[in-house]
This record gives sequence, C-alpha cells and structure tokens, in this order.
Amino acid sequence: MGGSRHAPCTDRLAEGIIRGSMDLYGRDFICTQDWTVDELLYTLELAARMKRERFSSRWTSILEHKTFIMFFYNPSVRTRISFEAAATELGGHAQFMTPSAGRFKTEQQAGETIEDAATVMARYAAGLGIRILEDKVPYYGAGHQVLREYARWADVPVLNMADDRFHPCQALADAMGWAEWFGDGPGRPNYGVLRGRRLLLSWGSGSLARSWCSVQAALLIASRLAMSITMAHPQGYDLDPEVVGWTKRNCKENHADFDIVHDPDSGYDGAHVVYSRNWMTPEAYQDGELQKQTEIERAMAHAGWTTTAERMARTDHAIFSHPMPVDRGNEVTDEVASGPRSAIYDIAENRLHVQKAVMALTMGNW
Amino acid sequence: MGGSRHAPCTDRLAEGIIRGSMDLYGRDFICTQDWTVDELLYTLELAARMKRERFSSRWTSILEHKTFIMFFYNPSVRTRISFEAAATELGGHAQFMTPSAGRFKTEQQAGETIEDAATVMARYAAGLGIRILEDKVPYYGAGHQVLREYARWADVPVLNMADDRFHPCQALADAMGWAEWFGDGPGRPNYGVLRGRRLLLSWGSGSLARSWCSVQAALLIASRLAMSITMAHPQGYDLDPEVVGWTKRNCKENHADFDIVHDPDSGYDGAHVVYSRNWMTPEAYQDGELQKQTEIERAMAHAGWTTTAERMARTDHAIFSHPMPVDRGNEVTDEVASGPRSAIYDIAENRLHVQKAVMALTMGNW
Amino acid sequence: MGGSRHAPCTDRLAEGIIRGSMDLYGRDFICTQDWTVDELLYTLELAARMKRERFSSRWTSILEHKTFIMFFYNPSVRTRISFEAAATELGGHAQFMTPSAGRFKTEQQAGETIEDAATVMARYAAGLGIRILEDKVPYYGAGHQVLREYARWADVPVLNMADDRFHPCQALADAMGWAEWFGDGPGRPNYGVLRGRRLLLSWGSGSLARSWCSVQAALLIASRLAMSITMAHPQGYDLDPEVVGWTKRNCKENHADFDIVHDPDSGYDGAHVVYSRNWMTPEAYQDGELQKQTEIERAMAHAGWTTTAERMARTDHAIFSHPMPVDRGNEVTDEVASGPRSAIYDIAENRLHVQKAVMALTMGNW
Repeated sequence: MGGSRHAPCTDRLAEGIIRGSMDLYGRDFICTQDWTVDELLYTLELAARMKRERFSSRWTSILEHKTFIMFFYNPSVRTRISFEAAATELGGHAQFMTPSAGRFKTEQQAGETIEDAATVMARYAAGLGIRILEDKVPYYGAGHQVLREYARWADVPVLNMADDRFHPCQALADAMGWAEWFGDGPGRPNYGVLRGRRLLLSWGSGSLARSWCSVQAALLIASRLAMSITMAHPQGYDLDPEVVGWTKRNCKENHADFDIVHDPDSGYDGAHVVYSRNWMTPEAYQDGELQKQTEIERAMAHAGWTTTAERMARTDHAIFSHPMPVDRGNEVTDEVASGPRSAIYDIAENRLHVQKAVMALTMGNW
Repeated sequence: MGGSRHAPCTDRLAEGIIRGSMDLYGRDFICTQDWTVDELLYTLELAARMKRERFSSRWTSILEHKTFIMFFYNPSVRTRISFEAAATELGGHAQFMTPSAGRFKTEQQAGETIEDAATVMARYAAGLGIRILEDKVPYYGAGHQVLREYARWADVPVLNMADDRFHPCQALADAMGWAEWFGDGPGRPNYGVLRGRRLLLSWGSGSLARSWCSVQAALLIASRLAMSITMAHPQGYDLDPEVVGWTKRNCKENHADFDIVHDPDSGYDGAHVVYSRNWMTPEAYQDGELQKQTEIERAMAHAGWTTTAERMARTDHAIFSHPMPVDRGNEVTDEVASGPRSAIYDIAENRLHVQKAVMALTMGNW
Repeated sequence: MGGSRHAPCTDRLAEGIIRGSMDLYGRDFICTQDWTVDELLYTLELAARMKRERFSSRWTSILEHKTFIMFFYNPSVRTRISFEAAATELGGHAQFMTPSAGRFKTEQQAGETIEDAATVMARYAAGLGIRILEDKVPYYGAGHQVLREYARWADVPVLNMADDRFHPCQALADAMGWAEWFGDGPGRPNYGVLRGRRLLLSWGSGSLARSWCSVQAALLIASRLAMSITMAHPQGYDLDPEVVGWTKRNCKENHADFDIVHDPDSGYDGAHVVYSRNWMTPEAYQDGELQKQTEIERAMAHAGWTTTAERMARTDHAIFSHPMPVDRGNEVTDEVASGPRSAIYDIAENRLHVQKAVMALTMGNW
C-alpha cells in the first residue's frame, strides 16, 4: 500500500499524537503484544476521532459494500452488537455466523478444515472476526490457536473477538476509557496521563468461572501504557505465566511497578483504576474438558472479594473499570457499579469506537 | 429537537390529516394507549405515504448507518422480516438477537441486569425492539414489564415487537388495512370512515393457545378510532379486564358501542370487519408456568368458532382481518382467508409501512 | 418490463457473448434446465464482468434498500456467506432466516401454509432464497417440491440455494471455474472451449452420505455446455433417472459423449475436469425417513474411490473440481485438493459472482 493511501489518512489524523503515516492495512489483530505501542496509539487516536465525529462522512464509506464475517463459537451480546454496528457505521455489513451453521472437521467427525474454510471466506469478505472461549476447547490456549490457524490461511485480516487468552478490543476500550476519565472526557482521551497511574486488577467473587481473556488483555495494555499494576487474587488463581511475564517486562521497560498481593484489601491503597473480575484457576481443565462446576465450587470458597464503596474510598479517587457483563453483588456492589466514578458504560461504548478504528485501518478503503 | 427538525417533516406530510408539526423523536412505542390519537394518526399518515412512495429518497437515508437492535425472546417470521426490511428501507440496519446469545440475570442464574444491558445497547443503537410472549414469563404481564424495564434504562426508543399484553405495530397495521379497504385502496386509507363501523372480534377454534397481544391491541386501536365493537368468545375466555376497561372507555368517549356475546354466530350481524383469532384463558398460568397443554385441551372443547362464508354472508359486506399466521380450518375457512374480502395480506404488508413510520418518527434523522 | 430496462443492461454487457437484450426480471432460478443456454451464458457473462469489476458502481445500487430473504431449512456456511455478501455488494440486504423461527404447518402441527408465508414475504422482499436438503424431508424430491410451492405463491423470484435435487448456483460456479481455467484465467472464462472437454464425475469414498444436488446440477450444466461426461460410481449408486435422462439428451443434442463406469480408475483416462464427491444411494429413504446411518455403512464398504495424484496423472492435465466442503482423505487427497491444478477455491469464489448476477438479473433495478 503506497503513500497515496497513507497521505489522506495521516492528514485526517493530523491532530493525533502520531505525526507520521502508519500502514496497518491487511494486519491481523489477535493480541496487543503483536502491535507496537505506536500502532496501538495510532488506532486509539483514530477511535477518539470516530467517537467525536461518529457519523461523519469521513468514515461512513470505509467499508462500503464490504462484508465482515463474525464467527461466534461462543455467544455474546456486547461483542456481537458492537462489531455489527461498527461495520454498519463504516458503511459495510457484518455477517453473524455460528459454527453450528457449518460442518467443521474434528477428531470425531468428518468436515471442513480451517484451511479450506478460511481460504474461501477470504474470497468473500474484507475481514474475519472470531470468538472462541475456554468452554469450546479441550485445553487452555487451544482457542487462541484456532485464531492463529485462521490467520495462517485467511488472506484478509483476522480480528480477535475474544479467545481463551486475549481480548485485545476490550483492552483498547479499557485504555480509551481510562484515558478519557483522566483526560478531557468522552472522545478526548489523554494517554500520556496514564503513565505511572496505578491499576488494581483484582479477582472478584462469584460463580461465573470467567475467562482469563479480558484481565490478561488489561494487564498487557496497561503495562504497555506505563501504568503501575497491582494484581490481587486468592492463592491458586495465578494467570498465564507467559502473559504475566510479558506484563512484568512491559512494566520494567516503562519504569512502572508490578506487584501481586493475595488479600482483597491492600491493593486499593492509592489505586487510580480499580478493575475487579472473577476468573477461573489454572486447574480448570481436567481430562481435556473445562470443569466448570468444580471451578464454581472453588470460587465460592473465596467470598469477600467484592469492590465496595468502602474499599474505593481508600483509593486515590479511582474510577471503576469492568469489561461487562458485571456480576453485581459479587464482583462489585451496585453502589460502585452504578456510581459516579464508574466508567463501565463509557468503556463498553468504546468497544464500538476502537473496533471501528481497527476495522478501518486493517481492512478499509481510504 | 427544534423547529428545524419539525418543519420539513410537517412539510412532507402537508397533505396529511394532521396539519401541525408533531415531534415523536425519542418516544417509546409500547402500547397505543401511551400515544394520543393525533400521534397515532400522524404516524399512520406517514406510513401511507411511505407505502405509496416506497423507495423514495425521502425515506432511504432516515436511519442511514444507524443500528436498530431486535431482541427476540420469542421467534417470529413476519415481525422479524418486516422490522429488518423496515430498517433496510430507511437506510439503516437491524440486528437480529436472541436472548440465548446473552447471559441475563434471573433468579436461577448470575448474569447481566436489564439496567446494564439496556444502558449499553443505547450507546450502540438508535433504537431497540423487543418481543417477549407469555411462554417466556412466569405470569401474565411479566413480558410487558420487561419492556417497561428496558424502556426505563435505555436512552433510545424502545419499540414493542409484541409482548404478552400488546402488539401496537400490529394494531396500526390492522387499522391501516381497514381504512384502506373502506377508503380508497392500498396506500389511500381513510380513517374518518371507520367511525361507527362495526368490528366483530371473535375467538377462534383451534389448538394454538394464542397470545392476547394482537386481539387486545386491536380492541384498543379500534376503539380509539371510534369503531363499535362486538367481542364474541366462549364463557371463560375473558381478556385482561384493564384492557377491556380502556376499550369501553375509548368507545364511550367516541359514542361507539361495545358489546360482548358468548355465541359464535350473533356477532356477525351487521359487522364491517370480522377478526377471528384463537386465544388462551385467564387461567393459563399455574405455579408460575404457562400450561399450554391444558389450554389446548380447553380450547378443543369449543369447536365451531370458525369464520365461514355462511357467517360472513350475514355481515354488512365485511372484510376479514387477521394478524397471521392464520390457523386455516380452525379460526377461518380457506374460502374466507383466501377470498375476495380477505384483507390479511394487505394488513401483513402494512406491518412494514407502519413500522417504517414509527422508526422514522421516533429515531430518525430528518 | 419494457425496453428502457433492457437497453442499459444490454449496453453494459455489450462485450458479452450475447448480443441482444435479455429480460430475466421476475424469473425463478430453481434448476438450470428451466433456463435456456443463452440465458445461462448471459448470466455467466455478467458474473464474469462482476468478478473483474467487483465493487464497480455499475452494480452497487442494483438492490439498493431491497431485501433478499434467505430461508435455510438446512444450515450452510458457504451458501449463507456468499448469498449475503452478494446482496451487500449489490447494495441490498439479505436476511438470514431458519424455519425454527416460524411455525409452519405440517401434518403433525398447526401452523402457517406456504401460500400464506410466501405471499407475505413477497410483500416485504425483492426475492426469496430457499435451501432444503434431503434430511429435512420424507422422500427424495420433496425438498424440491417445497421450492416449487414457494415459487407458485411468491410474487417475487425464488432462488434455489440447494434443494434435494438441484443446486443451480453451484452449477454456474462450477462452469465458470472450468471456463476460467481453460480460458484466460480468473474473470476471463471461455465457455466455447468447454465443448468436447471430458468431465469425470466420480463418486467419492467417505461417510458423509451427501446430497445428490451438486452432482446432478454439475451433470446438467456440463451437458448443456457440450462437455463429454463420464460418470463413475459403485453399483447401486445411481442418481435420479430423470436427471440422468436429461443429461443424456443434452449430450446427444450437443454431439457429446455420455458414459457410466463402475470402477474407480478407468474414468480418469483423458479427463479434463475431475469432480469427485460422495453421495448416497437411491435406497436412502425408508419409511419416510433418511437412513443416514445405513447409508454411511453402505458407503464404508466402498473404499478406494479417492482422487489421488496417481489417478490425476492419467488425465489430460485435468483440473480438480469440487463444490466443497471437501472431505479430504476420502473424496480426494490433500495433495490434489491443495495442489496446483485444484480449482476448488476459484469455484467457491465464483458462487459469489454468479449469485450476484442471478440476483441482479432476476430482481434488480437497472
């Protein structure tokens, strides 16, 4: 893609923090670690402009007459609506597909290979989004491998709509929300101001045995943006060591702190962003299957990991962050979730804007 | 919304029966009783213009690049197709969602609250349609309460795509069809001519144990438009007393008659519109669950409540009205349903036009 | 439809092989035998232009603001994506419906008749696509009858998205792919060059008990285009005698050969196109139900019907054709399916282009 494609794009983003041109056309977006900080910020800057000028004709023909295929191995409300609306607002159309609609090859049944499916989809569509979480795969990371396999064969961008390891669009939406709250409000994020701010990422009580994807994505983006991080979780609730390792490295490179505590209280001291979320243990799989009931019983033994107004009062005027859906009463009280420092709805809205930006940059006609 | 939005709208409807401007932007449409007769007629007049000039550029950018979310707790063919086509014809896009796609909070399971779901959807979409019928809820009226709860939190219009009490879009389509047949034909309705005409709303035989929503919506709209009404149903098949009360009051205000008979014959005498439809009894719920099988057995005891050509011959050249799907052979004979005085297909078509008008007025860019 | 509609259409296709105008507006497309060879070639020529100039403004408003309803009794990935993308690329919108969304009348349950459903859908939509395969019907041909019944009542074109007898869009995509490979490459098909080329249509091993629709559609289109045909299948795997009869007649009219062999090897000699595909026996239905398990067991007795590189080496530099999804390892080896003479992805892509052409010609605004 030559300079003629970049020039107008750069021009449109002239007020952005990135001054040069940047070509993301054709790129996959599977994990934020695959992209440079500049690429992420460039995308986030575009997302903010798209939020400020939501239905501007600048954007509404970027995917005109183009198809984005959404492949949902797992159902979703927010991800589905926000991606489909993103395509509509860019002038395109997102198709909603579920694997039950196809006959894919598995060890148990004959069917189509990912090579064949991805190759053909790339003939029809400008891009392909996939969502596959831990309950659809036999071991941790197998969902992420499915995405990498689609990306290997598809000759168009593959976007991660949440896999069992990462949820990069959620990460961008989180960061944008934090940067808006500490910046100049909706559509006016300031990413520089996040440097050195403290994120408390806390395990949350409840019986949902949730995926690691959102919290791991939050660790990665926060550390890339030079935030200091405190993780808080009960013993036995470690996340993916590789992701934690990347996070530590990101923090170190940015001269930011990284700590882990195992009590539900201490992490709140001095925090600027509190993010609480239930998740499962590393022992969740047994015999190639997710043991959801066992995980629920394990989690029920850890009551009291709830973000409350009392705990929030000990922070440095922190905002509350959550990828939703919120398990109210367990992960957080209603008072906090619906309170004046709750950023959850702004962050949810940002899913739309960051996804529009990612789609526009990776598959758009400029 | 200032005068600049109204002026062109009024101008476009200059030939309508309503002369002044009328701002319905942002309004919910959950029950026709929530709107004034003028508001309903204004909407119906726009629907007729949209029918006459179906793909005119006047309408095709009203929802351009906008998303309308359709939330179907219950499946549907006609409602789904007509709402989705309405969005397409207005330049927008309707997303088809089912609750199995989400994880909503109930007494039995953790999940998302309607507060959270509705607040977020309103960030993504221009409007929200919901369909929830009696078999998805534990008692009569609970479906309607779900709509009111969505409307409470959603910062965009909520449209009723049929709940367990009302089906206001069906009501508008019915009225438009009647006014076309007694007026100047398709796209040329005359609502004034309905004044004093007799509607027979008759229970129909069959084993479908159908919802009250369509017949109750018909009672309300007919009585608002000053039609005289005869309800005919077996003993024990009373409808919602509150709705019947509103209907009586509407009739009284319009100096129209309202009667109830309990035989399948006498109501046909002098009728101008015959509407037959199976429905369930007020005892349909036991122990928080719809007893469909019991209702079917009850209904089977009442054979002979079928609209036949012989009965139609006793009317004042009545048209046949039905919200579809028709249970042919039980509610009505093929001879009548497919006969020259059957308005069923015109009424079904009108679903599209009235829904376009409602969507355009409540959520459109004019 | 007068000359004013034809003139620009003809003009646009001036370089096509068909010189005169041709009006296909309003026509159903249920079986290629229903259309003349000139009509099929006219459509194929338009498809090639649409492939060469994929997002040209010539095509992108042909279905603007129009709805195409896709009714999937059977699920599908390729057919769904390609039809929905086709509508999008023509400026319209395809709705994805499944019968579970409706309450259709059967012998067992009350519900809506096809008369009522089709009549109403035609009020909402510009066209109607239907997919219904053998496992949804009680005997061979019953799915095809459903399409004919929809077409009887729908006042808009009905397109066959695969029934239990035919798959005409697959047939057009096959022919276009063959004519591209033996012509001047993608988007540059030469149909004249197919005359006299040899098609080997071979039964393939495997446990999928597949439909007859694609292979029967291939027989019909190949014979219409004057190809010589060798069918190869085990004893007991005869296809529909009426379709084989039409194929023989088509071949005879075109002075082409038609042969049937019952061994997995001899048909490869001198072939130009090799098409291998598993299919079921004529005894697949017992007692009004498809006996899938019995068919699988029957098929498993016939190992070795696999298209291999060794067999392909005996052909006249043949291309490999398959309607996908491919049952790799049974119908064909990976080496052939992913090899340099495999046309499967080009043919799959052509589904999009031929469907755009069919939709544009039968239901478009030119």
